[in-house]
Amino acid sequence: MPANIQNIIVLGSGNLAVHLVRAFVLAGKNVRQVYSRSGKLPGLNDMAGNIEIIHDLQDMSKDADLYVLSVPDHALPEIISRITLPDHLIVHTSGSVSIDVFKDRFRYYGVFYPVQTFSKKKTLAYKNIPVCIESNDPAGIQDLTKLAEDVFGQACEIDSPARLKIHMAAVFASNFTNHLYDIAHDLLDSSDIPFDIIRPLIMEAAAKVQADHPASVQTGPAQRGDHSIIEKHLKELAGSPDLHDIYKKISDSIISFKRSRS
Amino acid sequence: MPANIQNIIVLGSGNLAVHLVRAFVLAGKNVRQVYSRSGKLPGLNDMAGNIEIIHDLQDMSKDADLYVLSVPDHALPEIISRITLPDHLIVHTSGSVSIDVFKDRFRYYGVFYPVQTFSKKKTLAYKNIPVCIESNDPAGIQDLTKLAEDVFGQACEIDSPARLKIHMAAVFASNFTNHLYDIAHDLLDSSDIPFDIIRPLIMEAAAKVQADHPASVQTGPAQRGDHSIIEKHLKELAGSPDLHDIYKKISDSIISFKRSRS
Repeated sequence: MPANIQNIIVLGSGNLAVHLVRAFVLAGKNVRQVYSRSGKLPGLNDMAGNIEIIHDLQDMSKDADLYVLSVPDHALPEIISRITLPDHLIVHTSGSVSIDVFKDRFRYYGVFYPVQTFSKKKTLAYKNIPVCIESNDPAGIQDLTKLAEDVFGQACEIDSPARLKIHMAAVFASNFTNHLYDIAHDLLDSSDIPFDIIRPLIMEAAAKVQADHPASVQTGPAQRGDHSIIEKHLKELAGSPDLHDIYKKISDSIISFKRSRS
Repeated sequence: MPANIQNIIVLGSGNLAVHLVRAFVLAGKNVRQVYSRSGKLPGLNDMAGNIEIIHDLQDMSKDADLYVLSVPDHALPEIISRITLPDHLIVHTSGSVSIDVFKDRFRYYGVFYPVQTFSKKKTLAYKNIPVCIESNDPAGIQDLTKLAEDVFGQACEIDSPARLKIHMAAVFASNFTNHLYDIAHDLLDSSDIPFDIIRPLIMEAAAKVQADHPASVQTGPAQRGDHSIIEKHLKELAGSPDLHDIYKKISDSIISFKRSRS
């Protein structure tokens, strides 16, 4: 039987940290403390009364069930070097940092990486979010799996090299797609056309790959080999070398994927 | 009062043509004939009994209310040169072809361009789809607007240069994002990780921009300026020069958009 992780301390104040705190609390967990270097926690004001915010690691309580490090990757080694927790489970939440970052300082550690995009201003349902779990200890796997299932609905045991692949895939499928939405917004803005005109299209493009392989629902000029449209668009983008370049690279890549599969 | 377009002939057999026929029929319109060069209409087999499929333009009936040309852009001039319709409304459905393609041969013409992505194998609800309407005649604007509202729920009067911008924006926000999903699929496949792990993320990324500006919900390593992750991912992609290049270009573009707005 996995142990029930109940008392949690979150270290960090970024998008993911704030959503983790909210998700833990909504799932009935006790978030004892949140460490924020600035002493502030924008996005959690409504919960501020119930959570102790600390801005000095000296004040960190040493009797929680789980310590969650949700700080930028480059800040992990430094914060790890300042924490001593002989027998407590500690995890980081990064997609791209190996579990070995904990190796020399802790006995019981792991990773808890939810595969989702979190923005402070955007609420979302904390269910149906796969969480990648890793631990140096079989009990850690069990306990973190139960926590992930309780809070986010899904857990997958994933080692560090596979998690790096998942993070990269997530960057392409989420961060980069959002930037393409942003480019589209700019293009429309330049002709005073409201972004609303492509919002249903954006939803449908995401909906299409929920059941199907993206390759089987690829559409557009590059997929059809309609070079007259591609040339027309590239001409229109001539004044924006970066966008011109992105348009060309992705169109070429669509054509090359299609060729490699035919 | 706009006239009620009831009898429609569709020329074309691609993704959009098939979905248009289906949408018109579902909205109670009478699709009299569909012109398919091959004489076949994959994706409309269930409706085949009620619709006459012609594969010779000589057989095209001359008494419909509307003729919808839904063929590849490069095929438009040739098919237009083979049609004579002195007093009937004819439209094309292209995002990137000017309305002027009809100018010298027709008296009454326009454009009917639904801003959506259509795949033959994927059904979708034909509502809340903005249709860009254009006509050389005020009555054409009125009639096509009513048709668009009846069939797809929304109509916008858009001239040819603005429509080209919308089409470009749609290519970025839909065709290109789908290719990024495809790249992500490949990355996961290479480590035997099921695509399911990022499907909720893909939906949420699209959902986030339904109310907000994409810039305000941009997340990820490039947005945070986390160069250690970017370098790690680029190193991982070193064996795939095209993906490496796309990763770098889009990351640079995210950083440059952020800088230009700060």
